[in-house]
Amino acid sequence: MIAVKGYAAQNPTTPLAPFNFNRREVGLNDVQIEIHYCGVCHSDLHQVRDEWGGSIYPMVPGHEIVGRITKVGANVKNFKVGELAGIGCFVDSCRTCPSCQAGNEQYCDVGMAGTYNGYEMDKKTPTYGGYSNSIVVDENYTLHVSDKLPLKAVAPLLCAGITTYSPLRHWKVGKGQKVAIVGLGGLGHMGVKFAASFGAEVTVLSHSASKEADAKRLGANNFVNTKDEKAVTKVRNHFDFILDTVSAQHDVNMYLGMLKTQGTMVMVGVPPEAVPVHAFSLIPKRKTLAGSMIGGIRETQEMLDYCAANNIVSDIEIIHIKDIEQAYVRMVKGDVRYRFVIDMATL
Amino acid sequence: MIAVKGYAAQNPTTPLAPFNFNRREVGLNDVQIEIHYCGVCHSDLHQVRDEWGGSIYPMVPGHEIVGRITKVGANVKNFKVGELAGIGCFVDSCRTCPSCQAGNEQYCDVGMAGTYNGYEMDKKTPTYGGYSNSIVVDENYTLHVSDKLPLKAVAPLLCAGITTYSPLRHWKVGKGQKVAIVGLGGLGHMGVKFAASFGAEVTVLSHSASKEADAKRLGANNFVNTKDEKAVTKVRNHFDFILDTVSAQHDVNMYLGMLKTQGTMVMVGVPPEAVPVHAFSLIPKRKTLAGSMIGGIRETQEMLDYCAANNIVSDIEIIHIKDIEQAYVRMVKGDVRYRFVIDMATL
Repeated sequence: MIAVKGYAAQNPTTPLAPFNFNRREVGLNDVQIEIHYCGVCHSDLHQVRDEWGGSIYPMVPGHEIVGRITKVGANVKNFKVGELAGIGCFVDSCRTCPSCQAGNEQYCDVGMAGTYNGYEMDKKTPTYGGYSNSIVVDENYTLHVSDKLPLKAVAPLLCAGITTYSPLRHWKVGKGQKVAIVGLGGLGHMGVKFAASFGAEVTVLSHSASKEADAKRLGANNFVNTKDEKAVTKVRNHFDFILDTVSAQHDVNMYLGMLKTQGTMVMVGVPPEAVPVHAFSLIPKRKTLAGSMIGGIRETQEMLDYCAANNIVSDIEIIHIKDIEQAYVRMVKGDVRYRFVIDMATL
Repeated sequence: MIAVKGYAAQNPTTPLAPFNFNRREVGLNDVQIEIHYCGVCHSDLHQVRDEWGGSIYPMVPGHEIVGRITKVGANVKNFKVGELAGIGCFVDSCRTCPSCQAGNEQYCDVGMAGTYNGYEMDKKTPTYGGYSNSIVVDENYTLHVSDKLPLKAVAPLLCAGITTYSPLRHWKVGKGQKVAIVGLGGLGHMGVKFAASFGAEVTVLSHSASKEADAKRLGANNFVNTKDEKAVTKVRNHFDFILDTVSAQHDVNMYLGMLKTQGTMVMVGVPPEAVPVHAFSLIPKRKTLAGSMIGGIRETQEMLDYCAANNIVSDIEIIHIKDIEQAYVRMVKGDVRYRFVIDMATL
């Protein structure tokens, strides 16, 4: 076994603390990655605090992982020692169901193996995430990372990036379309960058008027303060596509009202409770409300390659791992522009 | 003006009663239809009782209209005196917006002219519906009706038929797909007939166990009693497409759980209040919840032609117009198999 250092939650209430644990030896198809940076996702906090139920402790969070390969198994074909690599939200899946076969491992019928707070495909070996100095993963679930981009700012692409890239690509967002991004946080700021890069006319919808300047700096053409009723009325039946990144409770019907006929709104944030949806918000103009979750390995690689080619990374704040609890407090307040990334050298 | 006899609601609470009113003279592009039958739609009752707000009185309900053409304007090209014809849920639209241009007049940007409880496109002349002996409509909003089918059973196709046909066609339901129809009422029974006719494997989901035999007689392969938890569990992640015809309050999340990965559920019924939708019902398997409203003129004609070619009509109970209030009472109880149709000769 490989001895690893990390930070773990032992239960939903006490602070994260140093935690030593073992990872499996590097198997024939595995790569070992020395973790340099790990992004801090809102879902880390939800799961650390067991807000979605079913949390597994001790929990080493983190699924926005980048670092350098230190060892490869004998059968590994696509990675070499010394290369940069990334790990996203899952480390395995059944590989045989229609979703896996189609490259949509995130929707695996058997259930993907989450990078942390989950189990390997044996459904009994717990998985530990990226708040640690090393990880061992099958090469088929490992991503190539370009050395053209600042590595620390690449980390959040592994979750925040693909979570917004995938629905924008799946629903074919691009030139000639009016697109709104709801919420300008870790997900939202990546949604703005991608939608703008794909050629859409991008509007940020936010209840924080203070974010207008940032929205435009990130690539948005327009900004609507959703507390301003007149501004909201002006964008009724206006957007072809809305990407809703908000994980707080919010009025989905207001946003559905902003969709054009046959428009689509996709939720990628998870509000704590069910959101009320009026049938009249969907029926009279054949509107669609859908959900989307991260992306498959193939699409995640495509996204990383797109980012390297188009010089897209996350806007981040680097933190010391001992400050993780403080980062969580600030994240809950929305006080981060736009993603915390742990410098794993501080471990 | 043309003197017309009908039945009208004068307010939300008193019973419908005989009402004499005038329709416009037959214009250059109009046809006049002697109404033989008019179906009774659940939305007639909602609007008569002002349950959706904004009702216009006096109100002559009815938008499932069939009869025979008695007069045509000088410029009418596609209809002749003596032919059968039908009128559905709208009698005009702006004709120039993208939706109208695409043949989706029901989603007209300006707002279609509802067949009743609405206004002509001048936005001031009230429209009166099919609980009457005659109607005058522009030929572009008039449908051809085959004489191969029993006319009285064709009437409900103009709303219940197209409301279910359109989403099944739009989302390309057919062979190799597992499709569920939620609710076996006026809409649901047409949904079963169409989905079965298109080659799908059809399951009826209903909380009325008594409807199983009828479901199968109408063409369903399977029946799931939604009060039976075990049966519900068996169809988790099972359907490619669900058509939800229920207009009572109901648990949409249970049905979303029955969709396969990337499955779509379409609401065509309007529950009185917003339905709670969990983000987790949509996100983990990229599911879609959409709405759909009737269909355009072109598609309605296609549906009527399809019905004539495939011998599809509604299952109906013929009523005397003086019994309309009793029919409403039975409809609210779900005590109709499956659509009341008024014999206008009883007027």
